[in-house]
Amino acid sequence: MNYNIAVISGDGIGPEIVAEAKKVLGKIEVKYGHKFNYTEVLMGGISIDVHGVPLTEEALSTAKESDSVLLGAVGGDVGNSKWYGVAPNLRPEAGLLALRKGLSLFANIRPAYLYQELKSACPLKDEVIGDGFDMVIMRELTGGIYFGERKTEEVNGIIKATDILTYDDEEIRRIAIRGFDIAMKRRKKVTSVDKANVLDSSRLWRKVVTEVARDYKEVELEHMLVDNCAMQLVKNPRQFDVILTENMFGDILSDEASMITGSIGMLSSASLGKTKQGMYEPSHGSAPDIAGKNLANPIATILSAAMMLRYSFDLDEEAGAIESAVIQVLKDGYRTVDIMSDGFSKVGTCEMGDLIADRI
Amino acid sequence: MNYNIAVISGDGIGPEIVAEAKKVLGKIEVKYGHKFNYTEVLMGGISIDVHGVPLTEEALSTAKESDSVLLGAVGGDVGNSKWYGVAPNLRPEAGLLALRKGLSLFANIRPAYLYQELKSACPLKDEVIGDGFDMVIMRELTGGIYFGERKTEEVNGIIKATDILTYDDEEIRRIAIRGFDIAMKRRKKVTSVDKANVLDSSRLWRKVVTEVARDYKEVELEHMLVDNCAMQLVKNPRQFDVILTENMFGDILSDEASMITGSIGMLSSASLGKTKQGMYEPSHGSAPDIAGKNLANPIATILSAAMMLRYSFDLDEEAGAIESAVIQVLKDGYRTVDIMSDGFSKVGTCEMGDLIADRI
Ligand SMILES: CC(C)[C@H](C(=O)O)[C@@H](O)C(=O)O
Ligand SMILES: CC(C)[C@H](C(=O)O)[C@@H](O)C(=O)O
Repeated sequence: MNYNIAVISGDGIGPEIVAEAKKVLGKIEVKYGHKFNYTEVLMGGISIDVHGVPLTEEALSTAKESDSVLLGAVGGDVGNSKWYGVAPNLRPEAGLLALRKGLSLFANIRPAYLYQELKSACPLKDEVIGDGFDMVIMRELTGGIYFGERKTEEVNGIIKATDILTYDDEEIRRIAIRGFDIAMKRRKKVTSVDKANVLDSSRLWRKVVTEVARDYKEVELEHMLVDNCAMQLVKNPRQFDVILTENMFGDILSDEASMITGSIGMLSSASLGKTKQGMYEPSHGSAPDIAGKNLANPIATILSAAMMLRYSFDLDEEAGAIESAVIQVLKDGYRTVDIMSDGFSKVGTCEMGDLIADRI
Repeated sequence: MNYNIAVISGDGIGPEIVAEAKKVLGKIEVKYGHKFNYTEVLMGGISIDVHGVPLTEEALSTAKESDSVLLGAVGGDVGNSKWYGVAPNLRPEAGLLALRKGLSLFANIRPAYLYQELKSACPLKDEVIGDGFDMVIMRELTGGIYFGERKTEEVNGIIKATDILTYDDEEIRRIAIRGFDIAMKRRKKVTSVDKANVLDSSRLWRKVVTEVARDYKEVELEHMLVDNCAMQLVKNPRQFDVILTENMFGDILSDEASMITGSIGMLSSASLGKTKQGMYEPSHGSAPDIAGKNLANPIATILSAAMMLRYSFDLDEEAGAIESAVIQVLKDGYRTVDIMSDGFSKVGTCEMGDLIADRI
């Protein structure tokens, strides 16, 4: 089959890690007889450099017309780079937000699990880790305070800045359904996270999620306050299967959860909408400090490509082949510097890509 | 000297732990010749039971007229208790929010540090802990999305819920000044946490904090995005001295930070305003599951009483006496169940209070 992939290499380590994902996809093409057509799309800092805006209309159209989007990383050091002296809507991240909204990718899926092979990189004690943990954060991605109106105004010498957090029941319902669907394929537990003791939007969230749960009798639903969830992730990450939450809480909790695994360089993510189209990217950022040095771990991007095969193209076997190749490389003792420990072989970005491709 | 203290025993384990704090304060009275006059004020669930509202006007007045407020804990299991079937403004937590606002307690100070004696309770690996960590979360407490307008409305069959997040420069400036003042007495580093790549309120936050920093040339100021901060707390808590942040982010991050110490039963907090008056309470909650069983750890409340002596009454020596007594009891090998480990003597709430009082 033929698939059209919009590729956003982006900024920082983006181009290096995307190159390795394409290398691995190349092996999939040969082995399984598919054809992946790539169209490079500029977004973020590089688009600002070339076009003066983080995402052009044309770039958005190209992404829209593609079967899926593969993204490296976007942005630089906030406040310390040439891209941040401009209006917020012209900064790199604005491109990412516009793309999420433009493609209606309301469901962001971030798995966070402990690789037994990388247990030593986990910051938690062995007693806390137990026999490992494996959760998915299902984050709403096109609503909430990220996309509400905002303004800053000066009245009588006082400067006042306002951001608006809104959710409607339809927005909550569609992400909740996704959360329960995923839970059905996993350990059948949903932890819905909100701040219902303070926010109206959270009370609506809780109400709608409770309604949706009625259609999933087999799934256990638990409600948890966001502050408590931030604690429980550290205290006992094993209790979680699917964490279902709104945009801003999901931003914070998914980063906390990925750091708890100790190997954020391994974690992929998918952003999905109503159709088969999706955007796939590593959970980590653009790491400008190590860009261009062949140091970045390409595995999160390679696993994001695997997610793309599974969710957008229904190529389960091919996705599995990539995932097995990654595990095999870890078993064979290869590590990039971020997950390196004594007794293993240190390799660079490019070598890691080769090693994984070789095992497909 | 004579001091008038409004005491809010509150719900769950509240009454038990407050009783132990009063026991310890009793020893201070005798030893240093002070007089503490207590007025019990109803707030939270117990006030709902008695008065039908979580905080009466009269209770608020009593608190206002006091020299300081000592609080145990408020609320029950959200969604599982008799106090939650009512309108949000009638629930236990609404009393707490009304009290914070009514007393203008805009600065919430939550220390999070690792007790060397309790290292084994810390969920982080020894390599991450290193020689320990010691930070203070300075959380804005009377602004932001906690106190903005909110509404839920149905229009054409769609239910829409909205919460508004607002900050003005004055609100940010006064909490920032508190943050830098505290940093001057500590290791002279402020990490200001925001989401400036998305929110207008965060951009104003960053701007004002940067301005305030100019008056504190000795203090190092660093800006950090909230998602990154949630990661860094797990990755390397030693990097933090003072974390300065807005209300909702502070709620999440302070809970994460206290869980990282592994001994949330030990952590006190202070909420301060412009005057010497303050409200002092443990960082943990009301733990309804263990209420009335003589199991709760009273140390966080006892240390909150010490903070009260120091910040509201300028009784540094007396505060120090309580803090030393707590350390001594730990050194002597006594532990409540939440911090118990092999080889120590397990004691209940009441015995722990006695042991600390004995050492003053
Ligand atoms: C870059 C930023 C706007 C973005 C977000 O907050 O959503 C990032 O942190 C993420 O989680 O993908
Ligand atoms: C009870 C609740 C409203 C409160 C808050 O969110 O501020 C609590 O979590 C806290 O941190 O003191």
